[in-house]
Amino acid sequence: MNSETTPTASVLIIGNEILSGKTQDANLAYLATELASLGIAVIEARVIRDDTATIVAVLNEARVRHTYVFTTGGIGPTHDDITAAAIAKAFGVELELSQEALGRLTASGREVNDARRKMAMVPAGATLIDNSVSAAPGFRLENVFVLAGIPKIARAMFEAAKPELETAAAILSAAITVEGSEGVIAAPLGAIADSNTTVEIGSYPFSRDGRFGTTLVVRGTDRDAIHQAMNAIRESLRGLGLPFTDA
Amino acid sequence: MNSETTPTASVLIIGNEILSGKTQDANLAYLATELASLGIAVIEARVIRDDTATIVAVLNEARVRHTYVFTTGGIGPTHDDITAAAIAKAFGVELELSQEALGRLTASGREVNDARRKMAMVPAGATLIDNSVSAAPGFRLENVFVLAGIPKIARAMFEAAKPELETAAAILSAAITVEGSEGVIAAPLGAIADSNTTVEIGSYPFSRDGRFGTTLVVRGTDRDAIHQAMNAIRESLRGLGLPFTDA
Repeated sequence: MNSETTPTASVLIIGNEILSGKTQDANLAYLATELASLGIAVIEARVIRDDTATIVAVLNEARVRHTYVFTTGGIGPTHDDITAAAIAKAFGVELELSQEALGRLTASGREVNDARRKMAMVPAGATLIDNSVSAAPGFRLENVFVLAGIPKIARAMFEAAKPELETAAAILSAAITVEGSEGVIAAPLGAIADSNTTVEIGSYPFSRDGRFGTTLVVRGTDRDAIHQAMNAIRESLRGLGLPFTDA
Repeated sequence: MNSETTPTASVLIIGNEILSGKTQDANLAYLATELASLGIAVIEARVIRDDTATIVAVLNEARVRHTYVFTTGGIGPTHDDITAAAIAKAFGVELELSQEALGRLTASGREVNDARRKMAMVPAGATLIDNSVSAAPGFRLENVFVLAGIPKIARAMFEAAKPELETAAAILSAAITVEGSEGVIAAPLGAIADSNTTVEIGSYPFSRDGRFGTTLVVRGTDRDAIHQAMNAIRESLRGLGLPFTDA
């Protein structure tokens, strides 16, 4: 892939519950898949604690390195929801009450108590990201998109924010599953990777029903180049006598 | 939790396939749960690409900050398996053939071709981590434990490495599920968190069958302190008239 022209993204998953093993993250795979279809490559993801200093440091590192940063988690009403305040701090701006956000919370029909009012506090200069599921909005500040942690809401917010993203040629992929372990395929596959440098070729072993197999994936933005690399791989597998199927 | 006495860990998930959204990571939740039971707190996790410079930089940052670093992925025989070489580079040591590892591969009965021989290359000074599933070992270098990416093998390797870890009082947790959104609970919960500072209290909203609920989790190493905080939470929920069940 041509990384010079591909917009990049960093995903910051904020929440002690992911790091305790209590909750399985489901947002990274979703965001990565969606962003790839928009031509935006997710270069890194970090799972960090609900800790102001950590959020500030990690966000400030990520937002200068990548075209976009997407955060998930920590924008609810409880004491451990510190993402909005930490992001304001990272940008050196005040956290302020958004009348627009407060209006949406009020319109949603639930009592707006002090805790819920907290969900209408956003960094100065932020624009709101619609939440079609539960009213309380996410927000965008410069290249940082702040989404909820609940997957259903994170998805709704991402859909709402999508039209704002600068896109590029979609990152396409093709994959096949091989009955056989990586050790047999490695040498020819390495040669194919060496002579198909405009695509990224990955080999991912797996174990299923006690047998080992390998998924081979070719990714890139050039459909013809993917096609050519896949053909070379198929031909090589036939030569090795290894059965394979489209994955 | 008393972070001064709790050993800490960083988990580095190495692999383009996780960042493409193609593969859902399953190792973080496993490692975090296991490590918590050993009293080792996972403070951060990073998902990074199969890129030497990135692995070197991220590993060198993590290994000085944490008691332990666990990596998963990139130790197979294919061209995109660069973890062992990158770790040697991070430590400034040579990558060398381990006769012991080669012996295990040979004993496993598979043909040891050049590609598989690569799986016997480990950084100088590393000790092997047994792989009861498919022979090819992981390795440990100082405080860095290098595990396979396939969850079944990562687990077997972790089990093998476990006796080498310095442990502390297990990080315990108790949790309840509340029928009600966070907004109602936030204020009393914040007060309880303020007066129970030896435990960590987390509030995790979820959406299930179209209804919102909240899981409240109390974590810490002191069983009595967890018990006390949970009792305060239960009492508060009863006062609010919110139904709850043990999670």
